[in-house]
Amino acid sequence: MNNVSAMTPHSARELFRSNKLIQPTAGIAKGYTQANLAILPKSMAFDFLLFAQRNPKPCPILDVTDVGCPEPKLMAPGADLRFDVPKYRIYKNGILTDEPTNIEKYWRDDLVAFLLGCSFTFESALLDTGIAIRHIDEQCNVPMYITNIECIPAGIFHGPTVVSMRPIPYGQVTRAVQVTSRFPAVHGAPIHIGDPAHIGIKAIDKPDFGDAVTIKPGEVPVFWACGCTPQAVAMTVKPELMITHAPGYMFICDVRDQSHAAL
Amino acid sequence: MNNVSAMTPHSARELFRSNKLIQPTAGIAKGYTQANLAILPKSMAFDFLLFAQRNPKPCPILDVTDVGCPEPKLMAPGADLRFDVPKYRIYKNGILTDEPTNIEKYWRDDLVAFLLGCSFTFESALLDTGIAIRHIDEQCNVPMYITNIECIPAGIFHGPTVVSMRPIPYGQVTRAVQVTSRFPAVHGAPIHIGDPAHIGIKAIDKPDFGDAVTIKPGEVPVFWACGCTPQAVAMTVKPELMITHAPGYMFICDVRDQSHAAL
Repeated sequence: MNNVSAMTPHSARELFRSNKLIQPTAGIAKGYTQANLAILPKSMAFDFLLFAQRNPKPCPILDVTDVGCPEPKLMAPGADLRFDVPKYRIYKNGILTDEPTNIEKYWRDDLVAFLLGCSFTFESALLDTGIAIRHIDEQCNVPMYITNIECIPAGIFHGPTVVSMRPIPYGQVTRAVQVTSRFPAVHGAPIHIGDPAHIGIKAIDKPDFGDAVTIKPGEVPVFWACGCTPQAVAMTVKPELMITHAPGYMFICDVRDQSHAAL
Repeated sequence: MNNVSAMTPHSARELFRSNKLIQPTAGIAKGYTQANLAILPKSMAFDFLLFAQRNPKPCPILDVTDVGCPEPKLMAPGADLRFDVPKYRIYKNGILTDEPTNIEKYWRDDLVAFLLGCSFTFESALLDTGIAIRHIDEQCNVPMYITNIECIPAGIFHGPTVVSMRPIPYGQVTRAVQVTSRFPAVHGAPIHIGDPAHIGIKAIDKPDFGDAVTIKPGEVPVFWACGCTPQAVAMTVKPELMITHAPGYMFICDVRDQSHAAL
């Protein structure tokens, strides 16, 4: 692992590009924004962008490339989204067909790439303010749940909001709301605090994605809109081609986490 | 004028729809969000939405209708954007050709309507916190200037940021930043404080649009990104058809100003 946390985003992307480093990106280039990637044909791009615009909490857009151009000019000028993610997933008609380390052979002139905010950004802010993150302490994936909260549909896209859950001690719940409210561009404030059943979650110990974590006495489950939502929603329409990052293998931007704070 | 400020948005829209009231909307249905309107053909809608997404301070999107549907489902369910604005402007190939009170005969199945945030929302918040608004006190239009701050281009759209200016006493500048930062969805914090020349404004007493206002000793000119920007930018490409509200005759939403506060 050595000193990956002190790397610059540019150095990390160079290592990904040359396949000298292929590992999940958590902890790499600490302090810099990591982003979810979704690439779709132009024919679906307006509906997808509109879906994100209507559902900013689960779908916080950080950057959208020009049609056919693999450079995310706002988040990492000079980077190339065909090479600079450590691992990708290729979906054809909704079926996972490949998990390559670059997408050169899949790239087309009609593709549009979307970078979407990721919970790593607000988790850093929570940690910095002294709020522990259970799935980090338990060294597992964050628990995620499909809720009964329907997203606002847009064109061909519709589906339920997916949330991630972090147990927070009663005494820190207000602070957790305040801290994450500062980051509306990366999921923002919680969308639910307390009873899982209220948002359609039947078994808190059986997440739909990720791993279950311990909820200790005196802790409340707090739910944030999750960046899985747009990919899950896009998948339901089985696009002829959709490319994403492999789970945990994110795109690292040149922009610092703190630059997303509203205030 | 009678009691227009106490009207509900719905009642005001009814009067506009039946042409019983045709007047600028400032002061009508106080506390509710007023929005800029821009209607474009679908062929330009992706580029326009992307332009707004890349330039959220001048182009804060509140709602985008489904293609061919005149109902702004997020901001005023049940309203009809063909009738519910008191006065419209029709531009063909960039030339103003009509100023009707409804757009029934211009509406087409391929049109997409955008509602964009307006400075009325953050001006209410400034007033509520005890900061006076000079152009309101002087009963004129807000002064607006074309700056040397280029917007981030998107597809066919590009152009400079237009700003509005409000003189603020030194002792209230910090508070003005704080108050407007709470409203990132409606222009948010100032983009410049102080020397107009720094953002390419040559003569503060000669605004490009609107009216000049007095800057008193001990006051600083404070500049916010202006909702004129997206319309000005759209106009440069001379769309075959573009429909907007007539200046000052805004769309009144069912959503309260305060609901846009981030915190």
